[in-house]
Amino acid sequence: MIILGSTGSIGVNALIIAKRFGMEIEALVAGKNIALLNEQIKEHHPKYVAISDEKDRYLVKHSEVFVGKEGILELLQKTQSFLVVNALVGFVGLAPSIEALRLGKRLALANKESLVVAGHLLDTSRITPIDSEHFGLWYLLGNRPVSAMTITASGGAFRDTPLAELPRMSFQDALKHPNWSMGAKITIDSATMTNKLFELLEARWLFGCEKLDAIIEPQSIIHAFVHFQDGSTTAHLAKADMKLPIAFALRGEIEEAILPSIDLSEIGSFSFQKIDKERYPIWEIKDEILAHPTRGVVINAANEVGIGKFYNREISILDLARLTLKAYRFFENVNPKSLDEVFEVDREVRQYCLK
Amino acid sequence: MIILGSTGSIGVNALIIAKRFGMEIEALVAGKNIALLNEQIKEHHPKYVAISDEKDRYLVKHSEVFVGKEGILELLQKTQSFLVVNALVGFVGLAPSIEALRLGKRLALANKESLVVAGHLLDTSRITPIDSEHFGLWYLLGNRPVSAMTITASGGAFRDTPLAELPRMSFQDALKHPNWSMGAKITIDSATMTNKLFELLEARWLFGCEKLDAIIEPQSIIHAFVHFQDGSTTAHLAKADMKLPIAFALRGEIEEAILPSIDLSEIGSFSFQKIDKERYPIWEIKDEILAHPTRGVVINAANEVGIGKFYNREISILDLARLTLKAYRFFENVNPKSLDEVFEVDREVRQYCLK
Repeated sequence: MIILGSTGSIGVNALIIAKRFGMEIEALVAGKNIALLNEQIKEHHPKYVAISDEKDRYLVKHSEVFVGKEGILELLQKTQSFLVVNALVGFVGLAPSIEALRLGKRLALANKESLVVAGHLLDTSRITPIDSEHFGLWYLLGNRPVSAMTITASGGAFRDTPLAELPRMSFQDALKHPNWSMGAKITIDSATMTNKLFELLEARWLFGCEKLDAIIEPQSIIHAFVHFQDGSTTAHLAKADMKLPIAFALRGEIEEAILPSIDLSEIGSFSFQKIDKERYPIWEIKDEILAHPTRGVVINAANEVGIGKFYNREISILDLARLTLKAYRFFENVNPKSLDEVFEVDREVRQYCLK
Repeated sequence: MIILGSTGSIGVNALIIAKRFGMEIEALVAGKNIALLNEQIKEHHPKYVAISDEKDRYLVKHSEVFVGKEGILELLQKTQSFLVVNALVGFVGLAPSIEALRLGKRLALANKESLVVAGHLLDTSRITPIDSEHFGLWYLLGNRPVSAMTITASGGAFRDTPLAELPRMSFQDALKHPNWSMGAKITIDSATMTNKLFELLEARWLFGCEKLDAIIEPQSIIHAFVHFQDGSTTAHLAKADMKLPIAFALRGEIEEAILPSIDLSEIGSFSFQKIDKERYPIWEIKDEILAHPTRGVVINAANEVGIGKFYNREISILDLARLTLKAYRFFENVNPKSLDEVFEVDREVRQYCLK
């Protein structure tokens, strides 16, 4: 198999699962953490590796090193493996997703932006999501007709922060996620609830369901609910550990223990909170974007630019949502019908937001 | 179809579902509520009816009336229908269950005592339970390997009663169930937690699972949890309304709305409590009886006698559990290997408890 983003938390867990099940690693793609990449090379003996930056090449202990975005595509073309784990972060993950599918490979997809911006243009029958919420939904689905789906949100780092203090919160504050240890970008997206909006868009493309909602479950133990026509609702519960969805994404089905079971009497209770539009302004357009899901590319591009500005202390976390909403209104009529149009809209929105 | 116990809450709901799906009613069996039985006869035109008591026969507006326990068996032998709903209350439901199965019929079983006393001697492949908890478990099962199952309990009428006041609680007090409107016997069994012990025994025979537990969920919205080998737990949630399990028991699968879906933000939270052995002394033998499930006949017979004594104000609700435990200890080595032995043990235990 091939792992894009091998030094992030998904990549690291994917290697643990791959090792446990004796799966061969054909290629590893990493960013700037060359030290960890070198350890992974030593342990897993990939045939090919790729890194982000030409200037790090001399540090990599491997003879077949590809570099940059183009390098990832070249690497994919060289590989024989059927399975590609795409755990790259952001819009940059789209081109490798497209290429992997074009090459006839199967995609275990943690890069949610691929589906958010181009879900209508990708063959989802060859995509397995690596995400607790979509794994939960998939686990719960059977042959019974579904009426709606609900995924849960942790609420992110600012769930309990007084509203008045939100404008003062820094990038570092936003990284303090209560339940999950994840990369920076997804942790910021959790704090703004943009991550959950993205997951609803993903669910839209993965499961074809149009009645989708999210609710805050602060413990991140319940991950998903499926509401069936008959009036039954089922829920998926598991410890907050990505090894479970990863194991299923890599193996299809699993008949052995990946995680210990939850203990209900230890948990004691679950509570749910509606997603508050004051705290999470992005939630304002939730219904609208689900009705027009091809506009996801606008939200994503604006959000990526906004995160950069937030990181550079140019704007507050609330401004980040406001920037996304402003771009969404400005580009209200986009409806990209090809991958080229997706890349074109992405460029235009970034220009607009950087102005 | 045939409905045994047509005037109780399960029977009434079964007739609603039968009508909705245009299912023909071949026979109705009722107890002493002849007024309601006459209404049901008028609406559903059964070919045969049966009642408990000879002296009520002249009141029944039907020409083919059977009477008493033997009458139910005769009625079953006359019928052509494949499906029998057995919603009789108590041990008296066993003989009709046996006869229905012997006649090659399918059993939609609300009479939990049949499985509690003789689950190892009945063909469970032709039994569909009518019970929210077992329906929930069944709904959640798929092809994935199961590690354990948990069902929920409401806690019954005395869940929040101060322990010191329990000995003073009357039969009427015990009938005030917080969530479900059910018959008297099952409502008393809820107050003592005996109902939940019975349901664990049923689950043992229905699903072959030996790792079984129960936990209090006071709202009765979550009915069941299945714990899978991989570390996933799934839950079944639905409004507390027996029409849902009844519809599935009568129809096999249902692809239309029987109940409205639950509203998570309206519900707001779930809490769980361990089952306290001081409040529910019967819980002391939970693990033991699950390890020796053929002893269910002892628990059931002692419990039925005890409920009579509690009704007659001879004993308190805590004494009722104590009587059952005493009988359980006395008959610790029973292990009935045939239906005849089940009936024999039942008689002996009743004699012992009536002493």
